[in-house]
Amino acid sequence: MLRRLLLLRHAPRRRHYSSSFSFALPLSSPTFAVFGANTGVGKTLVSAGLAASLLRSAPSTLLYLKPLQTGFPADSDAGFLFRRVPSLLRPSHAVRLIASLDTLSVSPSVETPPRSPQEAAFSYDGEGEVVRKQLVCRTLYAWREAVSPHLAAEREGMAVEDAHVRSRLAACLVDGQNLGNGEGEMWKLVETAGGVASPGPSGTLQCDLYRPFRLPTILVGDGRLGGISSTVSAYETLLLRGYDVSAVILEDRCLSNDKFLLSYLRNRVPVLVLPPIPEDPSDDLTDWFSESSSVFGLLKDALQSFHSTRIQRLNSMQRKSKDLLWWPFTQHNLVPVDSVTVIDSRCGESFSAYKVKDNKMMMTPQFDACASWWTQGPDSNLQIELARDMGYAAARYGHVMFPENAHEPALRCAELLLGGVGKDWASRVYYSDNGSTAIEIALKMAFRKFSLDHGILVGSDKNITNERHIQLKVLALEGSYHGDTLGAMEAQAPSAYTSFLQQPWYSGRGLFLNPPTVFIRNETCTLSLPQWMQHSHLSPGDKCFPSLAEVFCKTRDSSSAADLYSTYISQQLSEYSLSSNREHIAALIIEPVIQGAGGMHMIDPLFQRVLVQLCRNRKIPVIFDEVFTGFWRLGVESASELLGCLPDIACYAKLMTGGIVPLAATVATEAVFESFRSDSKLTALLHGHSYTAHAMGCSAAVKAIQWFRDPSTNSNLDFDQMKLNELWDGTLVNQLSSLPNVRRVVSLGTLCAIELKAEGSDAGYASLYARSLIQQLREDDIYVRPLGNVIYLMCGPCTARDICTEQLSKVYRRISSFNPVH
Amino acid sequence: MLRRLLLLRHAPRRRHYSSSFSFALPLSSPTFAVFGANTGVGKTLVSAGLAASLLRSAPSTLLYLKPLQTGFPADSDAGFLFRRVPSLLRPSHAVRLIASLDTLSVSPSVETPPRSPQEAAFSYDGEGEVVRKQLVCRTLYAWREAVSPHLAAEREGMAVEDAHVRSRLAACLVDGQNLGNGEGEMWKLVETAGGVASPGPSGTLQCDLYRPFRLPTILVGDGRLGGISSTVSAYETLLLRGYDVSAVILEDRCLSNDKFLLSYLRNRVPVLVLPPIPEDPSDDLTDWFSESSSVFGLLKDALQSFHSTRIQRLNSMQRKSKDLLWWPFTQHNLVPVDSVTVIDSRCGESFSAYKVKDNKMMMTPQFDACASWWTQGPDSNLQIELARDMGYAAARYGHVMFPENAHEPALRCAELLLGGVGKDWASRVYYSDNGSTAIEIALKMAFRKFSLDHGILVGSDKNITNERHIQLKVLALEGSYHGDTLGAMEAQAPSAYTSFLQQPWYSGRGLFLNPPTVFIRNETCTLSLPQWMQHSHLSPGDKCFPSLAEVFCKTRDSSSAADLYSTYISQQLSEYSLSSNREHIAALIIEPVIQGAGGMHMIDPLFQRVLVQLCRNRKIPVIFDEVFTGFWRLGVESASELLGCLPDIACYAKLMTGGIVPLAATVATEAVFESFRSDSKLTALLHGHSYTAHAMGCSAAVKAIQWFRDPSTNSNLDFDQMKLNELWDGTLVNQLSSLPNVRRVVSLGTLCAIELKAEGSDAGYASLYARSLIQQLREDDIYVRPLGNVIYLMCGPCTARDICTEQLSKVYRRISSFNPVH
Repeated sequence: MLRRLLLLRHAPRRRHYSSSFSFALPLSSPTFAVFGANTGVGKTLVSAGLAASLLRSAPSTLLYLKPLQTGFPADSDAGFLFRRVPSLLRPSHAVRLIASLDTLSVSPSVETPPRSPQEAAFSYDGEGEVVRKQLVCRTLYAWREAVSPHLAAEREGMAVEDAHVRSRLAACLVDGQNLGNGEGEMWKLVETAGGVASPGPSGTLQCDLYRPFRLPTILVGDGRLGGISSTVSAYETLLLRGYDVSAVILEDRCLSNDKFLLSYLRNRVPVLVLPPIPEDPSDDLTDWFSESSSVFGLLKDALQSFHSTRIQRLNSMQRKSKDLLWWPFTQHNLVPVDSVTVIDSRCGESFSAYKVKDNKMMMTPQFDACASWWTQGPDSNLQIELARDMGYAAARYGHVMFPENAHEPALRCAELLLGGVGKDWASRVYYSDNGSTAIEIALKMAFRKFSLDHGILVGSDKNITNERHIQLKVLALEGSYHGDTLGAMEAQAPSAYTSFLQQPWYSGRGLFLNPPTVFIRNETCTLSLPQWMQHSHLSPGDKCFPSLAEVFCKTRDSSSAADLYSTYISQQLSEYSLSSNREHIAALIIEPVIQGAGGMHMIDPLFQRVLVQLCRNRKIPVIFDEVFTGFWRLGVESASELLGCLPDIACYAKLMTGGIVPLAATVATEAVFESFRSDSKLTALLHGHSYTAHAMGCSAAVKAIQWFRDPSTNSNLDFDQMKLNELWDGTLVNQLSSLPNVRRVVSLGTLCAIELKAEGSDAGYASLYARSLIQQLREDDIYVRPLGNVIYLMCGPCTARDICTEQLSKVYRRISSFNPVH
Repeated sequence: MLRRLLLLRHAPRRRHYSSSFSFALPLSSPTFAVFGANTGVGKTLVSAGLAASLLRSAPSTLLYLKPLQTGFPADSDAGFLFRRVPSLLRPSHAVRLIASLDTLSVSPSVETPPRSPQEAAFSYDGEGEVVRKQLVCRTLYAWREAVSPHLAAEREGMAVEDAHVRSRLAACLVDGQNLGNGEGEMWKLVETAGGVASPGPSGTLQCDLYRPFRLPTILVGDGRLGGISSTVSAYETLLLRGYDVSAVILEDRCLSNDKFLLSYLRNRVPVLVLPPIPEDPSDDLTDWFSESSSVFGLLKDALQSFHSTRIQRLNSMQRKSKDLLWWPFTQHNLVPVDSVTVIDSRCGESFSAYKVKDNKMMMTPQFDACASWWTQGPDSNLQIELARDMGYAAARYGHVMFPENAHEPALRCAELLLGGVGKDWASRVYYSDNGSTAIEIALKMAFRKFSLDHGILVGSDKNITNERHIQLKVLALEGSYHGDTLGAMEAQAPSAYTSFLQQPWYSGRGLFLNPPTVFIRNETCTLSLPQWMQHSHLSPGDKCFPSLAEVFCKTRDSSSAADLYSTYISQQLSEYSLSSNREHIAALIIEPVIQGAGGMHMIDPLFQRVLVQLCRNRKIPVIFDEVFTGFWRLGVESASELLGCLPDIACYAKLMTGGIVPLAATVATEAVFESFRSDSKLTALLHGHSYTAHAMGCSAAVKAIQWFRDPSTNSNLDFDQMKLNELWDGTLVNQLSSLPNVRRVVSLGTLCAIELKAEGSDAGYASLYARSLIQQLREDDIYVRPLGNVIYLMCGPCTARDICTEQLSKVYRRISSFNPVH
């Protein structure tokens, strides 16, 4: 009995896929993309020959997809396969093949009406048992003119957005699973149009259009004169999009291109060579296909081996990772092997995770809601730009020595930093590798400046007046976190991270104040008072705010809260300095506006502003730790814009490179820099790391900094105010803040954090309280990593607002029905 | 009067250029490479049209070089320019053009004898003053068959090594300077063969062959069907080699390829379009050149603007860097603006520095003798491999969250580490960003293990028995250096780096022993005894060694030196533990064999072996800081192989990624890992950095680790013994060690260090003693950065031995005549 073919007759509803890609793709059927090194290199002949070879042996079903077809209906690659493949199955095969052909959408200018699905049965009554097989050939979009799809789409009035092409292709690949008759394997081939970098209907290059699928690829090389060059270049274009090329196959045009490529690609990709394709258009290629048959057999074997090696590796990665890796901040006992997330690739805000569920292998997209430890900024376009820049920087500079030297990426990055986050105050950039080192450097800078300003160091050689008796301390806030190396840890208040168990050398060299915080609860912006303020008299207008804008408003500087803060801080400083004349508060260090690792707490910006002012009055250098808050994380390039005051020293990392490689910068005023000058090397700042100002990091930063602040690449940017438009839907945020199991919400810039109500051991860093919620969200394709009982979503500065809304809605749905099981 | 043209009649002598490239290229004449997106896209027409356009206006001399010509003499691109360009100068120009043509080497199978230089004068007796101009057209190598150079070279018996092509091209570009008549500008064009990735005579791709020159590039795009794809791909292939594409120019074939490319490359590269090239072979193209004339004018303008922008930027970089950057370990007062090294690019072991000398702008190669703070390993091939891998990793993964996750680069890198440097002892890999963080993590690991082994922490929750009274210390060696963050600094003995001036929080939490060292002096391997050993009785055989092999020999374990060491160390440990029962030596940390930053001291390996054994007996965890010594720096993959004993924990960074991006790994035994396991997150190792295990770093490490240990890519490798062959010429090393102004030499693996004799303030880290020597070496194209009065050369694991010899000879020459001026 013939099985009715399941056809997709309607395109999926239109959604916004500018960056996010949300289809789980089945991995059980080997699926390959066919790309061409150039146009006219014989992609369709390869597809046909491979299809025949496959149908002759393993799979019972072959799905051939041609997403974009021009020159239709005269040219139809799907039609070619439909007609030719059945005839290529050798009579010695006892096969009953059912072939079908259909076309989903055609341009209005196609003169013949779109053909309805055709079916053709080919049967051979040889000896032995007859095997049933099927070949499904499908064109997704077709245009009349035989030109590039971007021209055809423009001229014929059937423009198609990338998102549509992707979602329809994804739907075909997913639904294609139902085509199989349950017996035997299924294979899928997706044949692209033109060369690897030929434009699709919207102008997006083929290699970019299909990148979110990251299908392993067959590259049809070019056997003609110049074909070595175009094949190598096409191969590199695919690599620059993160594709794995599983085989190169090309026609022999008696130029030995294959021999060269075989040698050039040795140990990387198998290279196969096909006999010359007859140039006579009347040749029906029967002889050619027959001569090529063994080569297609080898191609099939190569692909089969590629696929099984890949699946085998993917299946082994959970176990191997659990056995060999030592994850940071992770109790390995609490990570069951099958909960290890195997990440296959990233595309913009999402990554693809390999999962096996109900015995089905899938590649599932996960929205990276933790922005991979708050580093991520790239949408999928920026990621490709960065990939190209990384290749260029590696080839042009690799890494070169920095002290006393200059190179373009380091200098350009410094110019951008000083013209951006350092504008109006900073004049020097000190590079290092990560937030923690940037903080240690900042502390060394501050201590030097303080020591000179306060007579602890004197003279041109900066001699110490009375070494052993002096202890320099920091002023910092409870709940702050500045990094994991000892110097950075010393600047934070005692916590689980600083115990003897974790860091026996920690002593906590600071005066730590407990600050007031702000959050949304029951739809209201509320000031939360620490213990010391509980009994202070504040008017309701000082405690509740109609919106965040009022919290940041500078008019609060003359409020009674400002007086209260000022009195408290002054008193703390006085008490401290009275308690010892050996100890000096030599630096203020704060995370402006939001404390990240401490639990996503928004500190009252007025409190921080008062703090900065009081320190400045006392000539205590001010350090802003902008490692988390910098580069649009909070909706502005520097959080100091929200705070309305400037530091002497600021630290940047994470988002600075757009989220691609580690790099940090400690930015300082000229006065701070001056305190290290003399004629002796010994007074210089003797701190450095091997890869200081490495070209790749600086190049990435140059690209990312410009990308984020350019309205032509960042559509979230309000260029007049130089801030991001609101990304998190206000209504949803308010609704969340009113849920009975939510304690508070903080929503600012790219961050939306939700603290769940939890008591006792359920609260705090080590809490597993939210575990089941996290699991549910991962099923919703959101990869959340909580801070104890704080759940947060974090997007990039360019993430489309509807992607944010989509994720936040999912979170709302899950939290509103969340019922933790203990 | 006609000036006689200077011709290069002899190829330069053969030298080894497998990686090093040592020509200073003049920058005063704009010089561009012409690359093609494919073969047959009209490179030579573009060269001719541009040449005419240039000669019409600015330059008085145009040098056109065609390094590789096949199909000769029928095809001769230089001949085409020689014949056609004079006729393209419009009669309205009062120009007297002298054109010449020559060919340096032809294949024996070229049937006509190599033509002698031809000259042709073209004069126009128009009105106004007559301007003299010259066009020099030169072919460097020519073959008869019209096939790819790699095939022609193979078939016709004129094989040419890349080094020859490069040196001859460089000589033409350098000597070309003399062609100018002193009046007006000179331009140079280098036209490549085929497409960007077409093979040269040795099989090296065009883009790789000319990469050391890094000439700004004109990419002749492809106007044909599929030409968008091949142009974009070719552009990316050039980027992946670090080229700057200054313009794209392509023929209009009525496919609007130019419009698409114009939009795609907007803000990056100007795109110009030429009228369709007549296909009729009898057309002499006069009309076409005439129609194209304005386009070539625009191309000329674009190139002129590119060149002047580049030079302007290069000229400003010293000043700007001095004003904006804050270099690590640098006293800015001691760096005059004109001593700032402006680095334009790197190729393998050398980088190119921009210099202006006697008013001449040059790009000079500098052998990177400090291996850019000991990070560098790539030869030029590895650099390109890494560049491609970086592009791929950035596109495929960007960066993704690590804890509880797995991705291929991190897992594969861990497998390679545990199968290589961690073989036979380690089972876990903890990633971080740099050597300093790797050390802080190692210390945390060691302290936990020690605390559990010694009852300081007890129970499944690892509670502390008596917190405030316990102080954990390290056992370390004087002169060791483990990094610049506070935790790493605490593990080193007091020094200039650790003073209050530099790090007010440093206290030095260790017992620091003064070790015996080994060096070569007067051609003898000598043991140098610290104070405490001065009066010990050691036989001459225990103090002098015929070679380094004897120093490492395990038979020394039963020598009287071993007894002496053992007694001393045991005594020190006992005294320390008697002095306080609150303080515990909880870790041993050493740089195995060579102390780097401390001044390139080789510690007697026997002393370190005894130390490790005694600590192991006392259950004190042993940490090897292999940040400097690891990955073949000392001639073996891990310095523990030299030492003959294993650690519990080891730290790697620097060379691990081949020298391209920061990444570090702390590798540990399963027993160490076990000491962090429990059912509580609070006992996990709570230390991490945002970019932990970033895909680009791990991918680079995977490539570099494999590259260095594979004899097919590392020709220095003695695969049987898994060590590098001797890189530094033994005779030269001995001669150096005998110079009167040399105190000692240490030569091991990729390192050759020379301590100059210096007294008082001339010795030590802050010394400027070697300054004039450094200056001389930089004039010899060696970029040396001294450690006080210690000069060193450092190559990569794959650097060809003759490059090392060349550099060492230069050092020998300079030191033997060194006379420091105070």
